Amino acid sequence: MMRSGQVADAVRYAAAHRRRFVTELCDFVRFPSVSADPAHGGDVRRCAEWLAAHLRALGMPHVGVMETGGPPLVLAAWRRAGPHTPTLLVYGHYDVQPADPRDGWHSPPFKPVVRAGAVYGRGACDDKGQLFAHVKAIEAWLNTAGVLPVNVLCVFEGEEEVGSERLRAFLRSHGGRLAVDAAAISDTMMRGRGQPAIAHAVRGQLSFELEVRGPASDVHSGNFGGAVPNPLDALCRIIASLWDARGRIAVADFYDRVRPVSAASRAYMARVGPVDADVRRAARVPAGSGESGYSLYERMTIRPALTVNGVSGGYAGVGPKAVIPARAAAKLSVRLVPEQDPREVDRLIRRHLARVVPRTVRVTMRTSSGVAAAEIDPRHPVVRAASVACEQAYGVAPVFLRIGGTIPVVSTLQRDLGIPTVLMGFALPDDGIHGPNEKFEIDNFGKAIDTCVRFLAEAGSLRTAHRRPGQDRSSRVRPPVVAASEVTT
Amino acid sequence: MMRSGQVADAVRYAAAHRRRFVTELCDFVRFPSVSADPAHGGDVRRCAEWLAAHLRALGMPHVGVMETGGPPLVLAAWRRAGPHTPTLLVYGHYDVQPADPRDGWHSPPFKPVVRAGAVYGRGACDDKGQLFAHVKAIEAWLNTAGVLPVNVLCVFEGEEEVGSERLRAFLRSHGGRLAVDAAAISDTMMRGRGQPAIAHAVRGQLSFELEVRGPASDVHSGNFGGAVPNPLDALCRIIASLWDARGRIAVADFYDRVRPVSAASRAYMARVGPVDADVRRAARVPAGSGESGYSLYERMTIRPALTVNGVSGGYAGVGPKAVIPARAAAKLSVRLVPEQDPREVDRLIRRHLARVVPRTVRVTMRTSSGVAAAEIDPRHPVVRAASVACEQAYGVAPVFLRIGGTIPVVSTLQRDLGIPTVLMGFALPDDGIHGPNEKFEIDNFGKAIDTCVRFLAEAGSLRTAHRRPGQDRSSRVRPPVVAASEVTT
Repeated sequence: MMRSGQVADAVRYAAAHRRRFVTELCDFVRFPSVSADPAHGGDVRRCAEWLAAHLRALGMPHVGVMETGGPPLVLAAWRRAGPHTPTLLVYGHYDVQPADPRDGWHSPPFKPVVRAGAVYGRGACDDKGQLFAHVKAIEAWLNTAGVLPVNVLCVFEGEEEVGSERLRAFLRSHGGRLAVDAAAISDTMMRGRGQPAIAHAVRGQLSFELEVRGPASDVHSGNFGGAVPNPLDALCRIIASLWDARGRIAVADFYDRVRPVSAASRAYMARVGPVDADVRRAARVPAGSGESGYSLYERMTIRPALTVNGVSGGYAGVGPKAVIPARAAAKLSVRLVPEQDPREVDRLIRRHLARVVPRTVRVTMRTSSGVAAAEIDPRHPVVRAASVACEQAYGVAPVFLRIGGTIPVVSTLQRDLGIPTVLMGFALPDDGIHGPNEKFEIDNFGKAIDTCVRFLAEAGSLRTAHRRPGQDRSSRVRPPVVAASEVTT
Repeated sequence: MMRSGQVADAVRYAAAHRRRFVTELCDFVRFPSVSADPAHGGDVRRCAEWLAAHLRALGMPHVGVMETGGPPLVLAAWRRAGPHTPTLLVYGHYDVQPADPRDGWHSPPFKPVVRAGAVYGRGACDDKGQLFAHVKAIEAWLNTAGVLPVNVLCVFEGEEEVGSERLRAFLRSHGGRLAVDAAAISDTMMRGRGQPAIAHAVRGQLSFELEVRGPASDVHSGNFGGAVPNPLDALCRIIASLWDARGRIAVADFYDRVRPVSAASRAYMARVGPVDADVRRAARVPAGSGESGYSLYERMTIRPALTVNGVSGGYAGVGPKAVIPARAAAKLSVRLVPEQDPREVDRLIRRHLARVVPRTVRVTMRTSSGVAAAEIDPRHPVVRAASVACEQAYGVAPVFLRIGGTIPVVSTLQRDLGIPTVLMGFALPDDGIHGPNEKFEIDNFGKAIDTCVRFLAEAGSLRTAHRRPGQDRSSRVRPPVVAASEVTT
């Protein structure tokens, strides 16, 4: 157990250096590390190298940039706390969402600026800022106590925004040898400004593209209009067929595995979660939408959702153009709840398409990624450790929230490897993640670092659970199973 | 009446100079005179100035570039045939369709090339090449006989592709003073290679854009998916609502004014017009689509059609992006048949939208242009003159075709001003107008010039019909009414 004086020293160090930390975060945000676009492959790599160099400079002894065939993994290990102290995997992602459309940004997305107490830029919050809070907490410990209170393995990936396929494959094949007791991820939302939250559920995801082809090339819509199949009409009709009039997904058997959430759990959600007005305010919409019988918070967490993320086809320039386009395309994603298998949902959607696609066009469905949902037992010691750290840093106990988004690695850590994972997120609902003018507020950045400093200390007092080399497999203390439990308090 | 020797001289001149004419056409096509895009305003103007200079250089005495507040009109008059010879308005448009998408083009759209006996480039056929056939016919006359066989007023506009609003306003306010007996337009299709056609019907058009707005800015589709209205879903559902399951337009009262075409007229269409396989081949589609009970040729001419010309919204880059976009937009156009009033159809669509748009999004409909359909009596003398010219040049009598497209000025000339108008088009069904790799075949260009040379002579023998200055209004010989007659031969 660390002495509280050491914690206080590290917290003071972080506060004293916050100004420099902000400058460094801006350097980090400056890389347009957009994993979705191969044209940014060089930026993604340079960002990884910058991060590795930064970790080396602050004293992490073992830092590597690991090739994956795609965006590299940045790994950093500090294991000097000895075999009787647990090992914490700190996960983050240095890749970011595309910044398009650019016209909504008040300052260029990859020229970060500090304005009104916040760093603005793509990735400032999701996830560079949150990842960096852990990095700076490590720095604070190393520059005060000279040691960390827990063994740490940093795993920073560069393709979270496109499904984490390579990291998940790496973890599935090497995860058992990592000797990790718990994992911490900061890539989720707080309840509000100054109101910490720990996420105990993330939805899964299936992402796919539809391409519809009609004429071999674009044709004149005056001359041929009414007689030639239009891939745009067909695509719109296919998309429209995906919901019924009540806002439910109209793909046959889609809800078969969707499990109702207990009344106690829904009551807890209603007590601590955002009310409809909060959701509308965060999304900046005058009205919510979706499946009746559920609050907006429930619709975006305990219910699956199908979203069209983009449609393109035909003429999108200024003015009219009389054309029937040769092709039209859409990007869609389904958010899944526990028990829904992304592969099965993929099959159901393909079966639906086979039924609704008109014979006059050809449709191709390309699946980009599939990730199962995950749930975390809020009673697990590592979650309690995070809860204590949050309360110390923010002065308020965190609430437990369900998150509508997906962090692909969570299901791999939790479900595949049995590594208890705590989601201790620092994004504010209005931080604009995935939208224009993404920001990370500096005061919140400071509190996030404070939380991470304290969490390292708390994690150091957890019991070790993983198998040591030479330890008998049968005597291994497994972490509790954390699959489908419910928050009831 | 011109001596046939003069016609033969002009025809020979055109044949002898065809190579230079092709080079000049390439110069004409090189201007990216895209009227839809204000960014090309300078190119449109430079193209107009080039055309005016060209007309001056070949000896037209009165050439002007007339300001309209938009793309200028190029006007050129030759009235030396005297008041007892009729005046022919030669119409063409020097603006072109956008060349997007660029990736389908084998050579850049605005770097015209001669390949396999054709000029390739945006506008090579629609309408620069066809307009230029008239210009070169005028040159052939002026450089052989030294005079034209008919008074000529060239009216070349620069916004046909966006609805001809300014030209139509100009004609409505000045048309009476133009003292024109007939108009000739070459901007339509032939029946096939070597098979001339005169168009006797064009559809009208209503172009509009829909914009759907949801969240004030893009939001995360994981965090909010299922609870926040998505303008893309809404737009797709709105578009899907525009047709019923049988392929008919589902806007209430839409067909109220659609008049059935006579059995005799349909029989003529079946005899001379393209069969379904021709249409499929021209559009390069494996199957047609649309309203049952009509041939493809009928669906694209005597029936109205609603076409989606473009949809955009959300992420269209490489890879996935988890976003619910703030806005989505579509460009649509309706092709109208006679008796359908574009303003009334506009109202019907707005009423439909009011009924189907979900309350969770805001939709704006912006009408770009509305043009009524037009029909031309194939028995009118000016049509017969064109028919004779076509037969002489091609060695085959033309057929009378209905055209699915719209030439906005036709309804203004025919219906508003009572100027009989002949549509003597030279586009081949596979010339790729409005699509990539638009071309104009050089052999066909030659025959088109030949036709125009002969047509000027034929037009010179028509009776004058318009009111002369000083002539009593009551004694004015009006052209025959040419509204709704049918082809019965």
